[in-house]
Amino acid sequence: MVRAEIKQIARDIRTMRIRGAGRIARAAARALKIAAKTSRAKTSTEFMRGLGHVSELLLATRPTAISLPNTIRYVMLDAKRAREVDVQTLRRSVISRADEFIRGSKGAVEQIGEIGARRISDGDVVLTHCNSDCALAIIKAAFKQGKHIQTFVTESRPMRQGLISVRELRKVGIPTTLIVDSAVRHFIRDIDKIIVGADSIAANGAVVNKIGTSQIALIAHEARVLFFVAAESYKFHPGTLVGRLVEIEERPPKEIINPRRFPGLKIRNPVFDVTPPEYIDLIITERGIIPPSAAYTVIQQLFEWKLGEEKI
Amino acid sequence: MVRAEIKQIARDIRTMRIRGAGRIARAAARALKIAAKTSRAKTSTEFMRGLGHVSELLLATRPTAISLPNTIRYVMLDAKRAREVDVQTLRRSVISRADEFIRGSKGAVEQIGEIGARRISDGDVVLTHCNSDCALAIIKAAFKQGKHIQTFVTESRPMRQGLISVRELRKVGIPTTLIVDSAVRHFIRDIDKIIVGADSIAANGAVVNKIGTSQIALIAHEARVLFFVAAESYKFHPGTLVGRLVEIEERPPKEIINPRRFPGLKIRNPVFDVTPPEYIDLIITERGIIPPSAAYTVIQQLFEWKLGEEKI
Amino acid sequence: MVRAEIKQIARDIRTMRIRGAGRIARAAARALKIAAKTSRAKTSTEFMRGLGHVSELLLATRPTAISLPNTIRYVMLDAKRAREVDVQTLRRSVISRADEFIRGSKGAVEQIGEIGARRISDGDVVLTHCNSDCALAIIKAAFKQGKHIQTFVTESRPMRQGLISVRELRKVGIPTTLIVDSAVRHFIRDIDKIIVGADSIAANGAVVNKIGTSQIALIAHEARVLFFVAAESYKFHPGTLVGRLVEIEERPPKEIINPRRFPGLKIRNPVFDVTPPEYIDLIITERGIIPPSAAYTVIQQLFEWKLGEEKI
Amino acid sequence: MVRAEIKQIARDIRTMRIRGAGRIARAAARALKIAAKTSRAKTSTEFMRGLGHVSELLLATRPTAISLPNTIRYVMLDAKRAREVDVQTLRRSVISRADEFIRGSKGAVEQIGEIGARRISDGDVVLTHCNSDCALAIIKAAFKQGKHIQTFVTESRPMRQGLISVRELRKVGIPTTLIVDSAVRHFIRDIDKIIVGADSIAANGAVVNKIGTSQIALIAHEARVLFFVAAESYKFHPGTLVGRLVEIEERPPKEIINPRRFPGLKIRNPVFDVTPPEYIDLIITERGIIPPSAAYTVIQQLFEWKLGEEKI
Amino acid sequence: MVRAEIKQIARDIRTMRIRGAGRIARAAARALKIAAKTSRAKTSTEFMRGLGHVSELLLATRPTAISLPNTIRYVMLDAKRAREVDVQTLRRSVISRADEFIRGSKGAVEQIGEIGARRISDGDVVLTHCNSDCALAIIKAAFKQGKHIQTFVTESRPMRQGLISVRELRKVGIPTTLIVDSAVRHFIRDIDKIIVGADSIAANGAVVNKIGTSQIALIAHEARVLFFVAAESYKFHPGTLVGRLVEIEERPPKEIINPRRFPGLKIRNPVFDVTPPEYIDLIITERGIIPPSAAYTVIQQLFEWKLGEEKI
Amino acid sequence: MVRAEIKQIARDIRTMRIRGAGRIARAAARALKIAAKTSRAKTSTEFMRGLGHVSELLLATRPTAISLPNTIRYVMLDAKRAREVDVQTLRRSVISRADEFIRGSKGAVEQIGEIGARRISDGDVVLTHCNSDCALAIIKAAFKQGKHIQTFVTESRPMRQGLISVRELRKVGIPTTLIVDSAVRHFIRDIDKIIVGADSIAANGAVVNKIGTSQIALIAHEARVLFFVAAESYKFHPGTLVGRLVEIEERPPKEIINPRRFPGLKIRNPVFDVTPPEYIDLIITERGIIPPSAAYTVIQQLFEWKLGEEKI
Repeated sequence: MVRAEIKQIARDIRTMRIRGAGRIARAAARALKIAAKTSRAKTSTEFMRGLGHVSELLLATRPTAISLPNTIRYVMLDAKRAREVDVQTLRRSVISRADEFIRGSKGAVEQIGEIGARRISDGDVVLTHCNSDCALAIIKAAFKQGKHIQTFVTESRPMRQGLISVRELRKVGIPTTLIVDSAVRHFIRDIDKIIVGADSIAANGAVVNKIGTSQIALIAHEARVLFFVAAESYKFHPGTLVGRLVEIEERPPKEIINPRRFPGLKIRNPVFDVTPPEYIDLIITERGIIPPSAAYTVIQQLFEWKLGEEKI
Repeated sequence: MVRAEIKQIARDIRTMRIRGAGRIARAAARALKIAAKTSRAKTSTEFMRGLGHVSELLLATRPTAISLPNTIRYVMLDAKRAREVDVQTLRRSVISRADEFIRGSKGAVEQIGEIGARRISDGDVVLTHCNSDCALAIIKAAFKQGKHIQTFVTESRPMRQGLISVRELRKVGIPTTLIVDSAVRHFIRDIDKIIVGADSIAANGAVVNKIGTSQIALIAHEARVLFFVAAESYKFHPGTLVGRLVEIEERPPKEIINPRRFPGLKIRNPVFDVTPPEYIDLIITERGIIPPSAAYTVIQQLFEWKLGEEKI
Repeated sequence: MVRAEIKQIARDIRTMRIRGAGRIARAAARALKIAAKTSRAKTSTEFMRGLGHVSELLLATRPTAISLPNTIRYVMLDAKRAREVDVQTLRRSVISRADEFIRGSKGAVEQIGEIGARRISDGDVVLTHCNSDCALAIIKAAFKQGKHIQTFVTESRPMRQGLISVRELRKVGIPTTLIVDSAVRHFIRDIDKIIVGADSIAANGAVVNKIGTSQIALIAHEARVLFFVAAESYKFHPGTLVGRLVEIEERPPKEIINPRRFPGLKIRNPVFDVTPPEYIDLIITERGIIPPSAAYTVIQQLFEWKLGEEKI
Repeated sequence: MVRAEIKQIARDIRTMRIRGAGRIARAAARALKIAAKTSRAKTSTEFMRGLGHVSELLLATRPTAISLPNTIRYVMLDAKRAREVDVQTLRRSVISRADEFIRGSKGAVEQIGEIGARRISDGDVVLTHCNSDCALAIIKAAFKQGKHIQTFVTESRPMRQGLISVRELRKVGIPTTLIVDSAVRHFIRDIDKIIVGADSIAANGAVVNKIGTSQIALIAHEARVLFFVAAESYKFHPGTLVGRLVEIEERPPKEIINPRRFPGLKIRNPVFDVTPPEYIDLIITERGIIPPSAAYTVIQQLFEWKLGEEKI
Repeated sequence: MVRAEIKQIARDIRTMRIRGAGRIARAAARALKIAAKTSRAKTSTEFMRGLGHVSELLLATRPTAISLPNTIRYVMLDAKRAREVDVQTLRRSVISRADEFIRGSKGAVEQIGEIGARRISDGDVVLTHCNSDCALAIIKAAFKQGKHIQTFVTESRPMRQGLISVRELRKVGIPTTLIVDSAVRHFIRDIDKIIVGADSIAANGAVVNKIGTSQIALIAHEARVLFFVAAESYKFHPGTLVGRLVEIEERPPKEIINPRRFPGLKIRNPVFDVTPPEYIDLIITERGIIPPSAAYTVIQQLFEWKLGEEKI
Repeated sequence: MVRAEIKQIARDIRTMRIRGAGRIARAAARALKIAAKTSRAKTSTEFMRGLGHVSELLLATRPTAISLPNTIRYVMLDAKRAREVDVQTLRRSVISRADEFIRGSKGAVEQIGEIGARRISDGDVVLTHCNSDCALAIIKAAFKQGKHIQTFVTESRPMRQGLISVRELRKVGIPTTLIVDSAVRHFIRDIDKIIVGADSIAANGAVVNKIGTSQIALIAHEARVLFFVAAESYKFHPGTLVGRLVEIEERPPKEIINPRRFPGLKIRNPVFDVTPPEYIDLIITERGIIPPSAAYTVIQQLFEWKLGEEKI
């Protein structure tokens, strides 16, 4: 039986109370840690079965973000590989890797800020879309270094997470302008660089991110404005090496309008879209800066995957 | 002194209670007609001065839509050209041209529907942005001809006029899907044609229309989806022949968010943008179908303008 | 009752024994002349009804080429405009305009050769597709002027009219290379210019021509090889000014393979495609050289059409 | 002295009785196996010399397909590396590696079908060119999974291998439409995905395949239709790592027309062309899905090649 | 016999002491005026023959600039059309039209400045190439209107006319930066608009101007920086309506280096190149602003040319 | 204290008496060798401190070329890694690695010539910019193989190193044409391939080279002319893996004009620019041919760098 606390985490992810691929990943690690801590399993098999239930519960919350399965894979790796060990050893392993993940994940955002800030010049005007910790970390790091930068933030309908970004940027004093999603092309000549986050990065360098990202990337490409993706390396999607597709989550219509007021109307609410690699200049990770054309080999290295393996 | 009724029309245009270039144009014609009817002028000069005041009042309401000055020009043309005529003759001229304009303007929408429907094929999926009478007229005309068509409509932030379009399309039974402005590129492979309206059309074929239009046109261009502009011929902007720029209106921030909740935040709210001619396939008018490259000669013909004239 | 001779002409056009928009046009003029000559009508009305039948018979043979209705329009123009004249006058008018058309049409090909040859330089390698009198006239005219040119000709499946072009070019001694339709991109770096004919030219400068033309134009555009269309001015399609679409003829599957040997297989055999204006450098006519962006005004001039007229 | 059976295999490859890079590769492996089995060599040196003759005979049949040298390399690898072993050991090695290759090659096609089918969605319309086992394997695998798909097949002049593909697809009941090579752009808006095979894949991701492939890829790129290459991993060309060029085979003119009927005419019949990597979305192999930008590192891995080695 | 003064003008044009299409045009008008004034002809025929000699002398100086023949055409128009008039009348006609041309030409530059300045915004950074009176007129007019603008000027090898532009701009106090021709793309993100002159404008909107112009236009197009051409309307080339090509002048190698120091070296020194219309946003003339797609109809209007006339 | 000889080398690099990334690299190796040879250090620490001074002196000369730090890194590698060794051992290590570097560097140019020549076909017309040993090595190697090739060379303002290339090419008898930098697009249809050198190559495949390179690459891309970069593998910039930017050196204005003659004028003289990877077909190194998309993994391999390391 799954504990209420864990169920609550799963629910919060599903209802987007916990949002953002990084925060979701850390919440999932925390959930597994709680499950490991509180497991009353007598045998290793039982313990692993319990953790398996929790993993499935978590995986079912949001289908697109690869950070969820990657986190679970990371936290459970040693436990899964272990042979003939007792429950206590498994418990310790899960707890310690969960802690390690959470620590690493927070550190990653900081490192991304530091590495990415090298690419922000004094006087730059930077646009960001939606609300990405990694993207904001870069902007803030550059600003802290004394670079005079300004930002444009899109509203990011339907959930308007742009308003959260706007508050975060204003809190540290960065001059910020809010625009509607439709106004990006109108202002593109005023923009020097664009930084967004990522929910999944495929082996061909394509990036799955908040709906609207791909059209901003297209606009940037048209005007030859630099387009950066900022993401922890657990956003890379290993399954794409063997052809798996990233499922695009569609969320309830009511996030857009009250459907009852429009009988007969169809409302489509995909929350992510796919930006092709040719519109992305760089992917900024805590492990360094990766051109989209290197995504394939980077995934090979990150997941120690060999050509032809199906297990991923 | 300007009558309350006329002031109310001007106010309604400014506050967007009267919206859409066609409706604005007809309201302006109506205002001039009222002014002519109710003028107590004793002399022609006095009469013309009064109408001049009304014209200025109307022109000040919205800076971008060329339909306003074009309508006033049309309604006042005979009166302005007249020499040594009495007040009664002027009055009759203004009233009759205002009536003529209103009639013609309504007819134009119908004719555009009929001409444009020739370009809609059975089975087409058509996307429209914002709320344009002309664009909807084409979709409805095609639907009435028995063509099985479907529509996608964008929300059109900040004023969400997409919701009005959605109601109009549903009222006549056309299958309709609502999406946020950011989702256009995600669905573009499902779309066969895009039809939007216009507020001003420049001599080089560029179209000024509701913010977001130019990025939809770019997305259509990338996917080679046909992009049509539907507009009455009084949307052509004669001043662009001699280099005048179309001013892009910026409206109050509060249309996007309550600025008081975000102190220090800059909010930009341009309501139009410029779509370059290379992203437009056809301009559908009541006078026929015009490729953007022909805008220059069409304006010459419409305004009987000769190479080198400054008066426009 | 329509004469056997005329029926034979119609049949020959339908079965492509008479091929090529120019030859079809002259055959149609000839058919009308025969009809006029041999009409036994007693009254003008009767005479016109007879010619009307012949016109319809001819129009039904091939749906795409605009040269057919344009020819009929030209030959019948005076007769149609005439009011209260006797049969003899009508007869004379039709015969004389048919003769005039045939003479003009032949002269046009020559003039196109002459004008177009100005654009062929010594040493040029020119590719042509299918079998166009106008395109070949330019190549031959340039060759006769002593320019050392070579040609590439595509096979032009399914009817392989490229083999006819190849014979015509070899007959006058022009070095010629035959390739399959699929090999155009492979050889494009060896080509300096491409010249093709046209069946219909739309108001936006788009050209309807033999299937395969549009992909050759795309290949030329990619490699920035000049792409010329050679066509008599009666290939311009006036109906496109008011939005009419050019119907693309599909011919019998058996022109590709014997369908009986492949039961259940669908075979599509469109004989034309549409080349968009942005891939066309120049349209070479007997009236001068026309950039595709000028097609709109050229059609206005050719058909003496005024903005807003529906009659076309 | 080379046995008749082996000579026949070589002849069949040269005359295209054995066609398709995969079938050629397996035939070559079979030829080497026969040679090994039937060799009467007394010494290892003699044995290797004999096999060397057979290798050269095979290599001379078709210059473009890299599968030939890659197969020979694979089959002979252990024998070549062996030092001081007897004839019997060499014989066994060649036979066993030839068997292994043939088995692996057949399995590869199946795996490609399975992996590639992940990228085919229900309702997709897929176009294929020429006759590729790998491409058809994907289409059939998707169809067997119950996805409702349709196919377009090009005739593929001059040898018309499209007709073979058409038969294979119809045999399993897939709705199929045949078109001429020139009609691809005309139908491109009806196509969702394109899948073709490959004869050689270069280190920069460029693909050498049946003439016409590169212009189909260009057309797909223009319309942003996905373009997939399906190929076993022995189609990668290691020599391109150090700059070697892939030779493009030209076959006899008579495959196009009877040259005697066209004296003086030059006929060019290249059977392959080169598709640049920017027009290819994915390369689907039995080892996983490879973006063209990863071809370089994949070849390094497949051939265990280190930066700077010339031996390849 | 041609007077020394006239010969000197011709020599100055040839040796580029008189440079720039506008200055050349005015010098030619002056030369014809002198010829008319000083002619000792007794008969009209003799007078016209003399002026004909002068015309030919002038036409031979520079082959590319259409302003030369256009000027001569303009100055001689009435004299050529005149029938049976005496020498004195011809003389007066030539003198008066020459004066008119010179006056108009100077006025044109001013009007271009005024019209073009409407397109320069406060804060713009404008790049210009070579030394064009019209381009500089626009920049200066905008600066005089109080707009804070800056300029980049290219060196413009081989004759380095950029240094002349630099002096003119500095003289009126405009902040100016000099760069080599190779550095345009490096600085393009700092540039808002580009303005160049023209030597000839073709019927398809292509512009012949100083060597290097077309690559700057390409760079602007890539970065979507606005590219304007500023030119008097006598730069339009009527002969291009009927297919005539603009000859590109090649000047002596010694303008680049001393050829004697590099025996065996070939040196090519074309002084103009052709910018295609798709890279040009607007052509700014004294008659208004013309999109390149309208060049065809503008030439028709300027030269009162009718479809099909060869005389041009 | 640094020896005069070493100071002179540093000065010669700074003043561009020693030019070209390869020559600079070898000069730096020579300087370190001299420093090692003549060091009077008593202790290892003292020795390393001395060599450290020399390294910094050399690094300060030119900021852009990565060959400088890469050379120093290479020469000092063993000495830096050594623990507890005496001065003599350090000295020997530095001298031997310096010799090795110089030998390898010269050999690299030759190997590049050989590998690159595989990509030059008989009859090719090759354009080169500035003066690159590696680019010229390829052209000369192909010429020596008996291929009939011709070259175009740009002047390469401001330092006009094109004149040096021209002399080198003429010395071996290759037909050569000199043009100004502005004339590249005018002649592009005559060019088959372009080969340039490199000063730094970034992890995303972007190439930093002589100012003007990026616009030539753009022109090549527009016309689909092959664009090759020839460079020794020590031109790859490892720091770009973690986001470091390549600094673009700006040299004194007087290289362009005498600034005193133009008071108030700003002169910008960047000597390098950045060519994006999408305009580069191949990078030809002594280690093989590398597509720009493989730069990332090639740098990983060359510098034995692992994902996530900061030390570079």
